[in-house]
Amino acid sequence: MIKDMTENEISLYIIKTLKENKKAEFEAMIDELQPYDVAKIYQELPEKHRHRFLLFLKFDVLADLMEELDKEEQLDLLNILGIEKSSKVLNLMDNDDLATLLHEMSPEKKDSFLSEMNKEESNAVQDIMKYPPETAGRLMTNRFVWIRNYYTVREAVDKLKSFAEYAESLNYLYVIDENSRLVGVVSYRDLLLAEPGEKINEIMYERVIYVTVTTDQEVVAQTVERYDFIAVPVVDEDHVLVGIVTVDDVLDVVIKEANEDIEKLSASGKAIDFETKTLVAAARRLPWLILLLFIGLISGRIISGFEETLQKVVALAFFMPMIAGMTGNTGTQSLAVVVRGLISHDINKKVIFRLVMRELGVGICIGVTCAVLISIIAYIWRGNFILGIVVGCSLFFTLIIGTLAGTVIPLILYRLKIDPAVASGPLITTLNDIFSLLTYFGIATMFLQYLV
Amino acid sequence: MIKDMTENEISLYIIKTLKENKKAEFEAMIDELQPYDVAKIYQELPEKHRHRFLLFLKFDVLADLMEELDKEEQLDLLNILGIEKSSKVLNLMDNDDLATLLHEMSPEKKDSFLSEMNKEESNAVQDIMKYPPETAGRLMTNRFVWIRNYYTVREAVDKLKSFAEYAESLNYLYVIDENSRLVGVVSYRDLLLAEPGEKINEIMYERVIYVTVTTDQEVVAQTVERYDFIAVPVVDEDHVLVGIVTVDDVLDVVIKEANEDIEKLSASGKAIDFETKTLVAAARRLPWLILLLFIGLISGRIISGFEETLQKVVALAFFMPMIAGMTGNTGTQSLAVVVRGLISHDINKKVIFRLVMRELGVGICIGVTCAVLISIIAYIWRGNFILGIVVGCSLFFTLIIGTLAGTVIPLILYRLKIDPAVASGPLITTLNDIFSLLTYFGIATMFLQYLV
Repeated sequence: MIKDMTENEISLYIIKTLKENKKAEFEAMIDELQPYDVAKIYQELPEKHRHRFLLFLKFDVLADLMEELDKEEQLDLLNILGIEKSSKVLNLMDNDDLATLLHEMSPEKKDSFLSEMNKEESNAVQDIMKYPPETAGRLMTNRFVWIRNYYTVREAVDKLKSFAEYAESLNYLYVIDENSRLVGVVSYRDLLLAEPGEKINEIMYERVIYVTVTTDQEVVAQTVERYDFIAVPVVDEDHVLVGIVTVDDVLDVVIKEANEDIEKLSASGKAIDFETKTLVAAARRLPWLILLLFIGLISGRIISGFEETLQKVVALAFFMPMIAGMTGNTGTQSLAVVVRGLISHDINKKVIFRLVMRELGVGICIGVTCAVLISIIAYIWRGNFILGIVVGCSLFFTLIIGTLAGTVIPLILYRLKIDPAVASGPLITTLNDIFSLLTYFGIATMFLQYLV
Repeated sequence: MIKDMTENEISLYIIKTLKENKKAEFEAMIDELQPYDVAKIYQELPEKHRHRFLLFLKFDVLADLMEELDKEEQLDLLNILGIEKSSKVLNLMDNDDLATLLHEMSPEKKDSFLSEMNKEESNAVQDIMKYPPETAGRLMTNRFVWIRNYYTVREAVDKLKSFAEYAESLNYLYVIDENSRLVGVVSYRDLLLAEPGEKINEIMYERVIYVTVTTDQEVVAQTVERYDFIAVPVVDEDHVLVGIVTVDDVLDVVIKEANEDIEKLSASGKAIDFETKTLVAAARRLPWLILLLFIGLISGRIISGFEETLQKVVALAFFMPMIAGMTGNTGTQSLAVVVRGLISHDINKKVIFRLVMRELGVGICIGVTCAVLISIIAYIWRGNFILGIVVGCSLFFTLIIGTLAGTVIPLILYRLKIDPAVASGPLITTLNDIFSLLTYFGIATMFLQYLV
């Protein structure tokens, strides 16, 4: 019955049960829905029904719902619930989501919530918040099952059963020694296939792939992706197991990081989406545009230094957009290759050398091809052979340098521990513009007597 | 012991066991390694040891190894093994990876491998290959556990145990009726917590979230991401359960799609990475650059139409790079917002209208700000008030149109079912260049008498 209902029909049914105060039917319907769906219904629910909706929901469902909402919606929901009910919900939330929520609150609000929560959960989430953002320590959850290396398979299975409700991920059971240090891992598949009397330390994998609390989230994502893991254990500096990062959080990280890369490469500044208000969006885009305005004036100043040459051969201006556009674009192409490659490759002197040599070769190939092409076109168009040579030579040199700049600059920034995706854009654009104009007008001025 | 060894030490140990022909020690070490690590060792192994390395590996490890290699390495490995051993390995590979490998072979090779494989696996992978690439049908695997809705919990757990080795994912058991249609799902956690005598159709979720064989892989990824699933079931047009897509494949899809978006936005063409050969990389980048060359010449032709104006007021050339750069960039900023938003938002008339209005507002804000700024600067620099007005007005209009173009063009392409990320770049660049030049020189020509 429910599986054949559309989203609309489900929403209407929910509203009906709220109006008619039929809690049992309400709960039966909610039980069949995923957290994402409950959140969608909640977000589209008319204001007047929200209070009862929240009151009807069980606390564990409320916790799941909280994890699907954005910050404003979360605070709004906690307001409606009141302090006492809120703390029950916060106790049930996953620590990583809770840490994110508390992190963005004012200190007073945060402390008042923390003091209402039960002590163990409160301590756990405060521990997480000690770690820097975008590290494994912040992403991890403490809802996992650990077993001692001296357990038998039967004891491990029993523990698994008793923790089945609590644990976020049951795929891997991490094995710790008497000092809580991570010493091995068994998958629950291994448990299913083993004899009940076997000892854990006989069947466990000793060579556990792990990350540390300070590991960057991109490296965590890379690890999970390489090994096709469902979760990865997190240890502290004493190799004590303190949490796990699950693959769904990794998926969210990858998507978020991909969006950030796209933002940076197109210099849109801090995240702008369809909902951002006009003035806010304009304010976020202006800084970069104003910077470009001044960089553009540097180019203008350079051209004005060759005012005499330009006055004598106005046709030189006709090729400016083309040279600038192509030089800029070859730089961007190289930049994109390097930025993506830095994520998935191990970087050493040999890799860098080969890459730079390859890009030099590419620059020469496209430089020669485009230079010859434009020389012919310029000659045919303006009937001036020397003009063709001047434009062709300029394009040749600027394409090579542009390609190399797009390769070398992000590598240098990476070495200086600056994020290449965000800083390379402006640097490469500026340098390529300046260089291409100097080259172009420089060569034109050298051949001025032959051009007129 | 092994857990303390570095990668280098493990490699050396492996080579030692190969040289001394100690198969048992070799196998004991390999047993402790993840497929990704075995692949890394294999790739760095000196040629002379590869044959024995492969002969020593068990067939299931060889299948896992195959799934970590790229196409050339896979074909190389199959060559070394020979037809008979290869078919044993192919029988054990996951169907989705197998389909990818076979798809890229010549038809003769593909047929010869398929005929050597066991019939069931061969049919399964040929079925997958009927589906279009980048769909759920191609990503899915048939290694999952299904149960009938009339089973008891005890029978389901028994089936789980017997399939524990075979199934790729054991988190969810999909429930089918007597016609093999998908009717429900139970999680392994639910089984652990239920009474052995309960019936499956009493405890199962009926409202199963699923995808169809033709669902695009980006939508599959979106579904897994929204619901935090470990796997999602795939049904055909009769709602018969035919496979599952696991989260590790989704993670790979998301990363690949993100890279493709970055490539498209920076117009690097087909994937270029650190390994691509010089001539190949140049050949992949040239088409776009040559297109830019001709687009640049269109701009040049427009400027040449205003040759007289330019001859009289050469200073107009000084502001060309700035206007072009800013107009282009505001277009790219808007483009990035739209491209990202199209992935995560539902698009309807209301959303589009609000977005275009917002972008118009943003264009006006940044247009006014930058126009005023540049007017002042141009006046101070060149001492010519009218020049400042001309440049400022041009910038005002081109920034508004540039921002709108960057918003409207991808939306139009999206409506025409053309990928906005790949086609918008050139269109927006071209249109913005042409428009900004026409506006700039048009206004300058109108005010020419006041400029000189």
